[in-house]
Amino acid sequence: MNRKLRMGMIGGGKNAFIGAIHRIAANMDGLIELKAGAFSSDPEISKASGEMLFLHPDRTYPDYKTMLEAEANKPADEKLDFIAIVTPNHVHFEPAMLALEKGFHVAIDKPITFTLEEAKQLKAKVDATGLSLLLTHTYTGYPMVKQAKQMVKNGVFGKIRKVYVEYPQGWLSTFSEKDSKGAAWRTDPSRSGKAGCMGDIGTHAANLAEYISGLKIDKLCADLNIVVPGRALDDDGGVLLKFDNGASGVLIASQVAAGEENNLTIRVYGEKGGIEWHQMEPNTLLVKWLDKPTEIYRAGNGYGSLQSSFAIHNTRTPGGHPEGYLEAFGNLYRNFALTLQAKLKGETPAPEALDFPGAEDGVRGMAFIENVVKSGQSNEKWTKFEI
Amino acid sequence: MNRKLRMGMIGGGKNAFIGAIHRIAANMDGLIELKAGAFSSDPEISKASGEMLFLHPDRTYPDYKTMLEAEANKPADEKLDFIAIVTPNHVHFEPAMLALEKGFHVAIDKPITFTLEEAKQLKAKVDATGLSLLLTHTYTGYPMVKQAKQMVKNGVFGKIRKVYVEYPQGWLSTFSEKDSKGAAWRTDPSRSGKAGCMGDIGTHAANLAEYISGLKIDKLCADLNIVVPGRALDDDGGVLLKFDNGASGVLIASQVAAGEENNLTIRVYGEKGGIEWHQMEPNTLLVKWLDKPTEIYRAGNGYGSLQSSFAIHNTRTPGGHPEGYLEAFGNLYRNFALTLQAKLKGETPAPEALDFPGAEDGVRGMAFIENVVKSGQSNEKWTKFEI
Amino acid sequence: MNRKLRMGMIGGGKNAFIGAIHRIAANMDGLIELKAGAFSSDPEISKASGEMLFLHPDRTYPDYKTMLEAEANKPADEKLDFIAIVTPNHVHFEPAMLALEKGFHVAIDKPITFTLEEAKQLKAKVDATGLSLLLTHTYTGYPMVKQAKQMVKNGVFGKIRKVYVEYPQGWLSTFSEKDSKGAAWRTDPSRSGKAGCMGDIGTHAANLAEYISGLKIDKLCADLNIVVPGRALDDDGGVLLKFDNGASGVLIASQVAAGEENNLTIRVYGEKGGIEWHQMEPNTLLVKWLDKPTEIYRAGNGYGSLQSSFAIHNTRTPGGHPEGYLEAFGNLYRNFALTLQAKLKGETPAPEALDFPGAEDGVRGMAFIENVVKSGQSNEKWTKFEI
Amino acid sequence: MNRKLRMGMIGGGKNAFIGAIHRIAANMDGLIELKAGAFSSDPEISKASGEMLFLHPDRTYPDYKTMLEAEANKPADEKLDFIAIVTPNHVHFEPAMLALEKGFHVAIDKPITFTLEEAKQLKAKVDATGLSLLLTHTYTGYPMVKQAKQMVKNGVFGKIRKVYVEYPQGWLSTFSEKDSKGAAWRTDPSRSGKAGCMGDIGTHAANLAEYISGLKIDKLCADLNIVVPGRALDDDGGVLLKFDNGASGVLIASQVAAGEENNLTIRVYGEKGGIEWHQMEPNTLLVKWLDKPTEIYRAGNGYGSLQSSFAIHNTRTPGGHPEGYLEAFGNLYRNFALTLQAKLKGETPAPEALDFPGAEDGVRGMAFIENVVKSGQSNEKWTKFEI
Repeated sequence: MNRKLRMGMIGGGKNAFIGAIHRIAANMDGLIELKAGAFSSDPEISKASGEMLFLHPDRTYPDYKTMLEAEANKPADEKLDFIAIVTPNHVHFEPAMLALEKGFHVAIDKPITFTLEEAKQLKAKVDATGLSLLLTHTYTGYPMVKQAKQMVKNGVFGKIRKVYVEYPQGWLSTFSEKDSKGAAWRTDPSRSGKAGCMGDIGTHAANLAEYISGLKIDKLCADLNIVVPGRALDDDGGVLLKFDNGASGVLIASQVAAGEENNLTIRVYGEKGGIEWHQMEPNTLLVKWLDKPTEIYRAGNGYGSLQSSFAIHNTRTPGGHPEGYLEAFGNLYRNFALTLQAKLKGETPAPEALDFPGAEDGVRGMAFIENVVKSGQSNEKWTKFEI
Repeated sequence: MNRKLRMGMIGGGKNAFIGAIHRIAANMDGLIELKAGAFSSDPEISKASGEMLFLHPDRTYPDYKTMLEAEANKPADEKLDFIAIVTPNHVHFEPAMLALEKGFHVAIDKPITFTLEEAKQLKAKVDATGLSLLLTHTYTGYPMVKQAKQMVKNGVFGKIRKVYVEYPQGWLSTFSEKDSKGAAWRTDPSRSGKAGCMGDIGTHAANLAEYISGLKIDKLCADLNIVVPGRALDDDGGVLLKFDNGASGVLIASQVAAGEENNLTIRVYGEKGGIEWHQMEPNTLLVKWLDKPTEIYRAGNGYGSLQSSFAIHNTRTPGGHPEGYLEAFGNLYRNFALTLQAKLKGETPAPEALDFPGAEDGVRGMAFIENVVKSGQSNEKWTKFEI
Repeated sequence: MNRKLRMGMIGGGKNAFIGAIHRIAANMDGLIELKAGAFSSDPEISKASGEMLFLHPDRTYPDYKTMLEAEANKPADEKLDFIAIVTPNHVHFEPAMLALEKGFHVAIDKPITFTLEEAKQLKAKVDATGLSLLLTHTYTGYPMVKQAKQMVKNGVFGKIRKVYVEYPQGWLSTFSEKDSKGAAWRTDPSRSGKAGCMGDIGTHAANLAEYISGLKIDKLCADLNIVVPGRALDDDGGVLLKFDNGASGVLIASQVAAGEENNLTIRVYGEKGGIEWHQMEPNTLLVKWLDKPTEIYRAGNGYGSLQSSFAIHNTRTPGGHPEGYLEAFGNLYRNFALTLQAKLKGETPAPEALDFPGAEDGVRGMAFIENVVKSGQSNEKWTKFEI
Repeated sequence: MNRKLRMGMIGGGKNAFIGAIHRIAANMDGLIELKAGAFSSDPEISKASGEMLFLHPDRTYPDYKTMLEAEANKPADEKLDFIAIVTPNHVHFEPAMLALEKGFHVAIDKPITFTLEEAKQLKAKVDATGLSLLLTHTYTGYPMVKQAKQMVKNGVFGKIRKVYVEYPQGWLSTFSEKDSKGAAWRTDPSRSGKAGCMGDIGTHAANLAEYISGLKIDKLCADLNIVVPGRALDDDGGVLLKFDNGASGVLIASQVAAGEENNLTIRVYGEKGGIEWHQMEPNTLLVKWLDKPTEIYRAGNGYGSLQSSFAIHNTRTPGGHPEGYLEAFGNLYRNFALTLQAKLKGETPAPEALDFPGAEDGVRGMAFIENVVKSGQSNEKWTKFEI
């Protein structure tokens, strides 16, 4: 019989943006309960956060090592099922490794680690333990992204030829590092890693492109820019792509496109047609054809059997009741939870449940950062995508 | 100190659509916990639903009377704070009255009751007990609807002159009453009430029009139609409106607009400009002006101080991370919960928290149904809106 | 063998808006040449207008009677083929009758005349002479409007059930009659006729609704308003409609919807689906279905044989090269010219060429004005549409 | 005093697409009259084309040399004012040079010539003769493109940082060279030149980017592809750009983006905001700001004095009456004609009239082709833009 899964959280204290998002996503479907947390490197903030979240005081911990140790020793019907890690990039690897060692499944915000080497080690640990890892590449959780992927996979567009993916934001158009904690750590090499914009949002774009197209980036040619004076990491870039089937593509990411919000958009074209999807209006998927009118696929409709089971599985409401970013995020947690529940029962999870990003996506994301930075510094046109 | 609020649910068993929506909305922000339920008039279904929802077996009840009786006798630190009623229209009034009598706050799906007379009695009971009632007119929970209301209220458009509100759906285009439980009860006068389409969605449109404009419908002229042969209640209608300030309007509602999903749209015009909002792309509010370019207000942005505190309060994510129907629904529950928490602490809730639909909206909604049906049967052009 | 058709113009002097539009429309396709004109009731303005338009001085006339007399006596290879009448509404009937009597075909701006009675007389004259009359209900000239009409006519949507047509403008939101000649005559009963907004744009909406749906308005229920203080004619209105097949509809027209430009929009729904078209983005037609994704038909594409010959005939450019209002207007003149050329050669014009609005549309337009004003003044809900 | 300008045409016979477009554009405003033509290298087709266009038989010529010779000897009040050259790319240079030598102004379809060297010679001839040359880079004729350019020029966005321009089409997705004359010559190096897609539409994108941004491309990094097997020239490409002020950009052009029509789109971002414009909905310009709502500028509105005189000058209709591709094309001819009329009168043309693309744009366009092809073949990342 199923039961609610017990979640512990590392990071995500009172004022942290992404921790609150993870909690909403985990709460939404009533499958997961937050039971413990080490919410901050500052024990006082951790304690206050636990109170705000109505946790039992005994399960609000001053640091993550204490939490993992204590929880690992609890009886089976109390102990945590998985650990959500929502700290800045440089504090992903160690708690994730320790959680896996202690036998917990792990959910982790992207990028998976600070370096590619760490990512490979972490993936090896996941493989060795047989535990599950969820990497929150949120945008693959949208139902119409699932629909797009399945249509491509089913070959309705023929061979894929072109992939355009772009991710313009404007929120770093001025030097706001002093006023904004989020701006500060994202542009600090010691906390964010080798890349700024390309790590923060370029990885989302690359992940989405590979997810929908079913292709792998094979080589790339990057132009990375620091547009705002005084900034230490790239805040903008354009990348030409070649995929493993010979298709070409263009990836754009910018955090200085003044006036843009979070305008992730992807277009994929095959021999017979293609798709266009805009994250800011996520319930609509444009499906284009060589010699038929463009079709507007909308989430929440079955269309006879045109809509994929993967799209339908990731939708909670009928057509015209818009779902958004939090539901896409919730889909990651829901599929992760369904997978863990199946494992608890010794069953094989459904393919739709298993379709969430994991350690392999994490390794490719870190490799994207390494390779795009390498290409940005190179005078050669093409840089081979190496892992 | 705050604590999670304890919710009991009446109706909303395993296969019921709207019950699941209420639970997601209540779960989302971690302020409310489902603790008990009488989920179905069939005790077996109720029991199975409680298991599915991970409730303690002792708190899954065979019927609502048993639940309200049992819960009223629990100690203060266990007993339910409020009851969510998500049954069909004809089973709203009695459980709501009983819940209030037992001292529980009430959340109730719209329309509030089966008849106007019941609605007035229920409102009187709410007023007499001092308890809170939430009526889930979901669409007023969207942040850009809040923004629109506040802009109108602040007079930026001058006197309001025109209100166009429309709500086309297509899902009842064929006679699907045999296949769809939702279709069956909504078109059955013994369960739905005097009106079909006008009760189900026309009330939402009327509520939204009055909410944003700040005006009250004063008289109306309705053309109600049964378009699909064999149907017992209106599935379509158009209504001319006059408001209490002399403004005029048009309200359209249809469930036979083949190919439409849930396309609630409102436009309000004053002397100097106006607004346009589409429920299916709810994070955008078009603000129009006589002699300036139209502006695109987007949820999640502050725009200096242009964005109202009411809009900001009802947003969880930064601009470009779309929130949707479930978040709007969640805003109703969140504001209701914030209000109950303030009451528990003896504090006055913030104006933003208090801004959720209640018994007064319920009475006006039932009066809309009565008056629109009366007008539909009249040969006179105008029917006075009477309560 | 074909030749350029010779056009004379009545009205449309130097500063007149609509005369210039007619000339561009007539010029566009190289089938028509402006050869003569009586451009103003002021002979000096007429003369200056003729010079501006590079006319031979001998063919710029001080008044229309002189022009019609002189031109009727010219030899066949010089004399005008048709007369374009672009004066205010109250100066349509007499020149049109005289032109027909002198043997000229006539193009005339809408509304066709000042009263319904005149319209019926003019139609009788057209019928009696066998000459052609073009009434410039511009909006039926758009290719995607043609496509919509043909799809409805071919029965792809089944029986038509609903028609929503709306025409909001904002340009009369303030009392601008003193500053704007266009505002002044349109709101002056002695020049505009019985109706203001309903005559100026409501007639366009009604014409478009009947054109696409293939139905006739059978009865109506109108709410006409004078919103701006001091105005003499309606500047706003809403109308409930019943059509001759039992379908119902709603027509909205307003010139005080502040911030709107020229937002004519129509939606038509049948049993199986329907269409949506927006004049401000005229190259797109949304085609909706009960259980398939909405399709985006675009002008300039054939889509195998999905696109109607009527749409293709009225398009000059390939898909993605937007055509607009002037091309729609040009289509009226082009089809009129193709019809006249066929007549000159004793041939039967193609059905696509004959598909332009004429005297019958004019009579129905004037009847719409009469009936909508009558209904606006009535306390009865329904007014029978009488001609 | 003004008079109609007399146009002769080279190329553009009966079935040629672009010749018909030039004629509509020239006809539209009544400022230009087609008086002569050498419409085809086949004298029979030329003759038949002249008849179709109602030309005097004496002025339909068997070849362009005969025409230029004969027309040059006509008296001043008969002879042509300018020559429109609408032949394939490899037949631009010689007739243009000869026309200039004979004293005619020239309008010429883009790309200006077959090679960069020819373009430079032609520009030198234009400069030497003092005659005017119009190059029909159509897209700079749209009023909202003018508005965008003027806003950038006036500094309202601060320094420009990013330019994204893209031009996806799908019409060459299959090998259609045997069926389509347009496909055949565009992909034939002996008629089209060094580049296929980049010459046909990439040049438009580059021209638009430089026009709006006011910047010049300084270096570029191109990935050119032949996607459809058997094709001889690029049908797709992506280009990274650096501009002369240090700004970066991305240019995309493709003719194998299956399902796309003519989707030219540009976004330009400065320090404080930016613009977005879509050719397929050309009457709308999105103006984005760092901390204000995005504004929707629409053609045909003055907005007090917000709308530039350059936008207003290039608009024929009030807001909401869409103008399109043919009007943009017509604006080029209209401004060219106004410039020629001013020259005829010895006056200085208005800045708005002089704002049409000319020989300098032609040289830069040919240089773009040369440089983009060179970069496409290079292993170095950056290729300097050389003329």
